[in-house]
Amino acid sequence: MRKSEVSRSAKEERAASCPSPRASRLAPRAYVLGIDLGGSSVKAVAVTPSGRALARFNEPFDPKRRMDFAETIRRLVRRVGAERGQPAQRIGLSAPGLAAKDGRSIAFMPGRLRGLVGLIWSEFLRTPSAIPVLNDAHAALLGEVWQGAARRCENVIMITLGTGVGGAAMVDGRLLQGRSGKAGHLGHTCLDLDGPPDVCHMPGSLEMAIGNCSIRERSAGRFETTHDLIAAHVAGDEEATRVWLKSVKALASAIGSFSNILDPEIAVIGGGIARAGAALFEPLVRSVREVEWKTNPSGIKIVPAELGEFAGAFGAAWNAIRIDPTSDSLKR
Amino acid sequence: MRKSEVSRSAKEERAASCPSPRASRLAPRAYVLGIDLGGSSVKAVAVTPSGRALARFNEPFDPKRRMDFAETIRRLVRRVGAERGQPAQRIGLSAPGLAAKDGRSIAFMPGRLRGLVGLIWSEFLRTPSAIPVLNDAHAALLGEVWQGAARRCENVIMITLGTGVGGAAMVDGRLLQGRSGKAGHLGHTCLDLDGPPDVCHMPGSLEMAIGNCSIRERSAGRFETTHDLIAAHVAGDEEATRVWLKSVKALASAIGSFSNILDPEIAVIGGGIARAGAALFEPLVRSVREVEWKTNPSGIKIVPAELGEFAGAFGAAWNAIRIDPTSDSLKR
Repeated sequence: MRKSEVSRSAKEERAASCPSPRASRLAPRAYVLGIDLGGSSVKAVAVTPSGRALARFNEPFDPKRRMDFAETIRRLVRRVGAERGQPAQRIGLSAPGLAAKDGRSIAFMPGRLRGLVGLIWSEFLRTPSAIPVLNDAHAALLGEVWQGAARRCENVIMITLGTGVGGAAMVDGRLLQGRSGKAGHLGHTCLDLDGPPDVCHMPGSLEMAIGNCSIRERSAGRFETTHDLIAAHVAGDEEATRVWLKSVKALASAIGSFSNILDPEIAVIGGGIARAGAALFEPLVRSVREVEWKTNPSGIKIVPAELGEFAGAFGAAWNAIRIDPTSDSLKR
Repeated sequence: MRKSEVSRSAKEERAASCPSPRASRLAPRAYVLGIDLGGSSVKAVAVTPSGRALARFNEPFDPKRRMDFAETIRRLVRRVGAERGQPAQRIGLSAPGLAAKDGRSIAFMPGRLRGLVGLIWSEFLRTPSAIPVLNDAHAALLGEVWQGAARRCENVIMITLGTGVGGAAMVDGRLLQGRSGKAGHLGHTCLDLDGPPDVCHMPGSLEMAIGNCSIRERSAGRFETTHDLIAAHVAGDEEATRVWLKSVKALASAIGSFSNILDPEIAVIGGGIARAGAALFEPLVRSVREVEWKTNPSGIKIVPAELGEFAGAFGAAWNAIRIDPTSDSLKR
């Protein structure tokens, strides 16, 4: 995928191919570039400051080639600037790992993407403005709040169900980052004191209860993926139903706990497993209602994520808009 | 206890009884009054804006007499003003229940202190400035951050071990309140999916694992109080040791979870059970080190609270200092 502008809506396509006479007389439209660095590809979105997506990009890189991730981002930024007739007004970036205290780099990311830790992106890309850097889960939550499932919400949790279980939280309108930037790692919450430890040493964590990483153990070796487990459950396999509903109940008790700790109005559920739709959301909502302490009649809203794999890019863009680039700290 | 000024330090006593010639020529010292409404008494502290305690008060009231809590506070405010030669510059209040969205009253407090819900304290006390109102656990955390065990910290959790397990959290320098004001209810976090539900419907919660409310169940009827359980443990009773260390391990896994969710640098442990000292803190720190995801070499600090029963009053005072009384919302 060399030319990788993707997923534009029909309306956006029309706008791109048939500029109105008035638009063609104007200067190129100012845009902000949100970049989300993944494990083997870079997602990016060029958006207006009000959140209208002008173009999306999905650029693969070779994770084994040292700094290929960074060179791919450098080429992408140049190409977007050339295509749009001007450089981005601002750039925001999200990446795996924990963001540095000053929000200019990733400070902690063991084992992957060598060269990422400590890389100051505004220096690497030689941009006139500072580039704020966010943890990828934090960015995905900001994206969903700005343009996705949690629009106009100020108290939000996001839980991403994949191989592991990721998370992020916003309370009273502020993204939680914490002392070292690890706040929001909701997947590493204990739900079983005697359970096996997860990758962060936490016994019987939410990640062990519903992450794809433990599907074999949970199903006594019967299933290789949660997708297969859910398919068997939907087809009426009683043992699959027992295993799946146990995992859903664990997620519900975790959401009930997060509700007491963080008091969100909405829980946004993303990641591959969330695509199960009603097979996840129906029993999940039912189970949450049993364990939550309701301080409003309807209880916490539980909804699927809307922005899919571009949530982090939207969040990185919004972060660049929200942050004062002349500030000492690019966190807020 | 009619005249109830208590607990002044020797230095404070000297200052009160022997005013220096210079001080006596000055106007009475400006002070802020922090008031903490409990279940059967009112604690209060008159402090300078920099946090120096000028006087402490502990005034009992009759919880069965309607509005006696409020009349007691009214008398106390008048008396402190008369004693100090001027009214308080500002007043802050903390109380059980959830604070209203605008921070002017308690919005939610079922079953106790009739008349508290919806009472606008600045109207009731006819003060010129608005009176910000906080949940009592939130206030205790602010107190410990201002003048107690968590001074100069921005990422803090506080856990209060008593009949129940209370809590509060500050992240990135901001007290978490959440959508309905219930953020920080750390005691109602699930640690055992199959455990009995607590008062908030949460199965196997931290409160059920270490709160005094479940001591009989946890000890198969042997102990009436956690104090007795710990005394037996210290005396070498093996069964008591097993029960106690199981509870401590549960608290440790909860702190490990809070560390991943909120990323605090310090956990302040208060409440009656925290007075156990080394019998609590030694095994607790050891167990936390086993389950925490360390992003700094030393891990989360775990310390006893310092302000005891006056933490809420200090926090209420600091809240009154931090808050702009002309703002629409008295929350920040």
